[in-house]
Amino acid sequence: MRSLLCALLLLAALPARAQGPLEFVLIDADANVNVGEFAKSGEDFSPLKTEPWKIEKRTLHGGKQEGSELIVVNNGKLEFGVSPTRGMSVVFLKSIEGEGFPLGWKSPVKEVVHPQFVDLESRGGLGWLDGFGEWMCRCGVEFAGHPGKDEFTTNTGEKGELTLTLHGKIGNTPASRVTFAVDEAPPHRLRVRGSVFERSFHGPKLRLDTEISTVPGSQSVEIADRVTNVGGGAQEFQLIYHTNYGSPVLEKGARIFGAFESLQPMNDHAATGVNDWSMCEGPTRDFVEQVYLAKAAGDGAGATSILLQNAAGTKGASIEWNVKQLPYVTVWKNFAAAEDGYVTGLEPGTGFPFNRWVERHFNRVPKLKPGESRDFALSFHVLADKAAVGQARERIEALQRGTKLSITPTAPVAPAFGDKKD
Amino acid sequence: MRSLLCALLLLAALPARAQGPLEFVLIDADANVNVGEFAKSGEDFSPLKTEPWKIEKRTLHGGKQEGSELIVVNNGKLEFGVSPTRGMSVVFLKSIEGEGFPLGWKSPVKEVVHPQFVDLESRGGLGWLDGFGEWMCRCGVEFAGHPGKDEFTTNTGEKGELTLTLHGKIGNTPASRVTFAVDEAPPHRLRVRGSVFERSFHGPKLRLDTEISTVPGSQSVEIADRVTNVGGGAQEFQLIYHTNYGSPVLEKGARIFGAFESLQPMNDHAATGVNDWSMCEGPTRDFVEQVYLAKAAGDGAGATSILLQNAAGTKGASIEWNVKQLPYVTVWKNFAAAEDGYVTGLEPGTGFPFNRWVERHFNRVPKLKPGESRDFALSFHVLADKAAVGQARERIEALQRGTKLSITPTAPVAPAFGDKKD
Amino acid sequence: MRSLLCALLLLAALPARAQGPLEFVLIDADANVNVGEFAKSGEDFSPLKTEPWKIEKRTLHGGKQEGSELIVVNNGKLEFGVSPTRGMSVVFLKSIEGEGFPLGWKSPVKEVVHPQFVDLESRGGLGWLDGFGEWMCRCGVEFAGHPGKDEFTTNTGEKGELTLTLHGKIGNTPASRVTFAVDEAPPHRLRVRGSVFERSFHGPKLRLDTEISTVPGSQSVEIADRVTNVGGGAQEFQLIYHTNYGSPVLEKGARIFGAFESLQPMNDHAATGVNDWSMCEGPTRDFVEQVYLAKAAGDGAGATSILLQNAAGTKGASIEWNVKQLPYVTVWKNFAAAEDGYVTGLEPGTGFPFNRWVERHFNRVPKLKPGESRDFALSFHVLADKAAVGQARERIEALQRGTKLSITPTAPVAPAFGDKKD
Repeated sequence: MRSLLCALLLLAALPARAQGPLEFVLIDADANVNVGEFAKSGEDFSPLKTEPWKIEKRTLHGGKQEGSELIVVNNGKLEFGVSPTRGMSVVFLKSIEGEGFPLGWKSPVKEVVHPQFVDLESRGGLGWLDGFGEWMCRCGVEFAGHPGKDEFTTNTGEKGELTLTLHGKIGNTPASRVTFAVDEAPPHRLRVRGSVFERSFHGPKLRLDTEISTVPGSQSVEIADRVTNVGGGAQEFQLIYHTNYGSPVLEKGARIFGAFESLQPMNDHAATGVNDWSMCEGPTRDFVEQVYLAKAAGDGAGATSILLQNAAGTKGASIEWNVKQLPYVTVWKNFAAAEDGYVTGLEPGTGFPFNRWVERHFNRVPKLKPGESRDFALSFHVLADKAAVGQARERIEALQRGTKLSITPTAPVAPAFGDKKD
Repeated sequence: MRSLLCALLLLAALPARAQGPLEFVLIDADANVNVGEFAKSGEDFSPLKTEPWKIEKRTLHGGKQEGSELIVVNNGKLEFGVSPTRGMSVVFLKSIEGEGFPLGWKSPVKEVVHPQFVDLESRGGLGWLDGFGEWMCRCGVEFAGHPGKDEFTTNTGEKGELTLTLHGKIGNTPASRVTFAVDEAPPHRLRVRGSVFERSFHGPKLRLDTEISTVPGSQSVEIADRVTNVGGGAQEFQLIYHTNYGSPVLEKGARIFGAFESLQPMNDHAATGVNDWSMCEGPTRDFVEQVYLAKAAGDGAGATSILLQNAAGTKGASIEWNVKQLPYVTVWKNFAAAEDGYVTGLEPGTGFPFNRWVERHFNRVPKLKPGESRDFALSFHVLADKAAVGQARERIEALQRGTKLSITPTAPVAPAFGDKKD
Repeated sequence: MRSLLCALLLLAALPARAQGPLEFVLIDADANVNVGEFAKSGEDFSPLKTEPWKIEKRTLHGGKQEGSELIVVNNGKLEFGVSPTRGMSVVFLKSIEGEGFPLGWKSPVKEVVHPQFVDLESRGGLGWLDGFGEWMCRCGVEFAGHPGKDEFTTNTGEKGELTLTLHGKIGNTPASRVTFAVDEAPPHRLRVRGSVFERSFHGPKLRLDTEISTVPGSQSVEIADRVTNVGGGAQEFQLIYHTNYGSPVLEKGARIFGAFESLQPMNDHAATGVNDWSMCEGPTRDFVEQVYLAKAAGDGAGATSILLQNAAGTKGASIEWNVKQLPYVTVWKNFAAAEDGYVTGLEPGTGFPFNRWVERHFNRVPKLKPGESRDFALSFHVLADKAAVGQARERIEALQRGTKLSITPTAPVAPAFGDKKD
């Protein structure tokens, strides 16, 4: 069948530097390629006999999305959009079965903002928020978390002072290479792959290779990431999967289920609501965000999961991952007015969203030797009925039964910049 | 006639999402549209029987204007250029009757600078000046005025410190939706409409809707703006119409006429010239700008006007507006060498160009409730002969006769950042 | 022959606003032109009878080079790339005779980074390093050197405080006008010309006109630059030609030869290796850069030269210039691991890479009167065999014999920001 497929593909658009017969290069800085518009569907690969699917690469226009690129994948049950321009963030995810419903949220930031219009240093290091609207964006990879000061080594080998900006640079860095591939073997997984670099002379040299994939007709999206230190010296990194859910799954009475070893509020304000950490409110004017920091509990192999379900338990979204890769999970409750962004975030990470100075103090900043890599695999599920929600919930409850949850009712005492670690 | 027009228009370029038969969508982020090049003229609407006019949308090239867009409107008597890329600023205005003359100035910044090449935080918050060359640009709308520090509420609900940059972001924010429309009814006004958003998560959510319009064959440009708080919480805003005139209207002996309740120099340097606030000098090496702050005096309905006339009183430019909308007007005298930007600014505003911390102290920072709007209407006139100049001057002198002008010869004492308001 | 050529050229692509029959406009902001793709070769000018050559203008794609432009010149013996987008920097230079070899280095920054992805203020003013990968880039022209604070005059005529960013803005400023020309007269030099502006209202108004040229079949590239103050007031400037060589010319045992009046380490770390300032090491993990500051010694006319040769003395690269134009030369030794950028820089300049505050203290910041210009001419040679290397070395040794070299073994005492001179 391979030769038949090859013949078929040669009749279609010729892939530039394709790797294997079913991989298409969409963007490649080394080869100086950007294919611009691109579209494929299951019909182009009819010998594969899959559920109907399609993929399309578009260039966006208007306002702050002028020139921004978007790859939309439709697997017949789900549709999601990947932004090569915004570091391979997953801009949106929606269920398209029956009436369908969005999994993401309605950010007040409406466009797929091109990084040329984002100044990360703006608003005291909060400029990242000018482009924040994704269903799932990575925070990292040189640093993640809140803005603030940190030390670094300058070109002269001396200690310099660096202003860390909110959630780092990866989400505002365009991908250097992007491909689309279809597996020849069943279940014919659809794979959008991308490579994004954070590299600077006298700075970090970090490479993110991501694969965002789905099986035609399935209810899930899988992300397989690898972070590699391509520099010649040891290099810290941080990575948080900032996954954000809104209405209709999020609503008054919606609940969060997670299996944790420990949970603690991030600040005094969150501490006032720590006993209700899992309960969701409706949109509320002037709501101030509440953030809870949990150490995830896994099964014998490290597998864990977190779930948001709606009030009736008939719709939900869950994330599965391994605590050996991502030991921590941040629960972000931002039950703001609809106009301000009604959202809750479930955020597996290598650490919590304190700034790197603080995270380093608590030994939550991993370090890569030259050439060393770390892999991260997450599976994001859309739960479209009561049975699916129930199964996900029961699995988490079973995990929690195996581990005693320790809740600390007060916020951790974070060191100020410059404090020496004992 | 409507149906005839509809038929005619269907034969021409098809408007994307047009609202009504005579409106053409040029840019629309929601619909993912940017038409690129676009041109229409009176001949395309021959049943309307207007004076000759034309409009053209261009993409600019070279240097810092690479990719910048410009809409040039020619009403037969005047020509002006609107920049969707630079927040719907009016880049230039010129009289094209007879020999014609420009109303704007010759900035040392020569190109219609694309915001990708402007870092507002540069030069201690003066980066805005790297792109400043317009005849009329808005300062605002989250904040306007000088750079400096201010407080704001961060994502955690705590007070953070923010570096305000000169004259805010609106002039370096691309429009999300732009249309061109012709009135079916006489006088067949030509309308360029645009919507520009300053929106950030955990930040302001402000919308500017502008209409920049002119009647074929007329000597004026009308601007009708609406600022709306589309967020869920109360939101301050500031707005200054930074309108800048140069040679030949500005020259040695040119004069400024305005109807004011009060006038005061902005700083000690301006105080030395307060008695000559209305007098213009020729281009002068090493001239240091002088700024005067006036409270405008209106007629019974609030209508007011300001005028710049040349030395002979044969050429002029005036602005008409309502003091209920824009109570203040800043007179900016910058009689620098031609190479450095010989210019004077007449700037109606919601306040003066102190930074927001100071303006708030003096109660000049308006606040919008969620969903609330404010409207601003200004009419800009080109006065091409002695009669037109004389009429404008007499109208202002009549207004001033109704109000006693109080001049304070010294600058206001502005609070330093952090000073408590009594 | 001129008329024949004219006729031939009229049949080829018509140059927009060409100056003379053999000049082609590639970019011109005044005329709103960017030709996009462009290619010419010796065959298009067959009456000229030159060695084979070609030139091509490309738009780059992928990652941070999306939209970046590159002009590649091939003179038959050498190939080099000029980036109009990055201020006419020479991105790469390589020998293409026989097996060929690169003259530049392998920066960890891999793409021809578009300035839209560079925030110079990032990393405490080191953001320039996010785009640094060129064989030769200019540092300047308002300021060059290390980040730090300096005073400047604000719009109100008062002293303000400015954060200087590493090596200034010129290398991240797109050229406003670019042309390509071929000399009608032998030796039919190929000339890429560009104009880049650093201009701001209430800021510097500096113009760089550069010509980067080569003769078909030759082993050298000539750069002729002119910096002009187009503003109405006196204006300081700084200019360093940051020329960077890597493997294979740079290797363990490679040596630097220069003719100097004096040489001094830039800091204490460099002081530890001052006696070996001319010796090169192989790539070394965690190597901390060493910088040496030399005053160049010229012959009677001011001509001087600096050379890097490989260990065997069989390959080399030299730069020739005049000490009256560029009195200083910085030797930058950065023998880092290959992944981190193994490189040495030979950097003629108007001063050293301290920040402007320090350089002003030492009287190394030239100032231009309104309208005044300074010219800078440099000749970059590829030395492809032992004989060529030997000649270059002997010339430098002869120059040094005419001048006693004074080595100061300790770093200069640089004033802190705010220190008064004397």
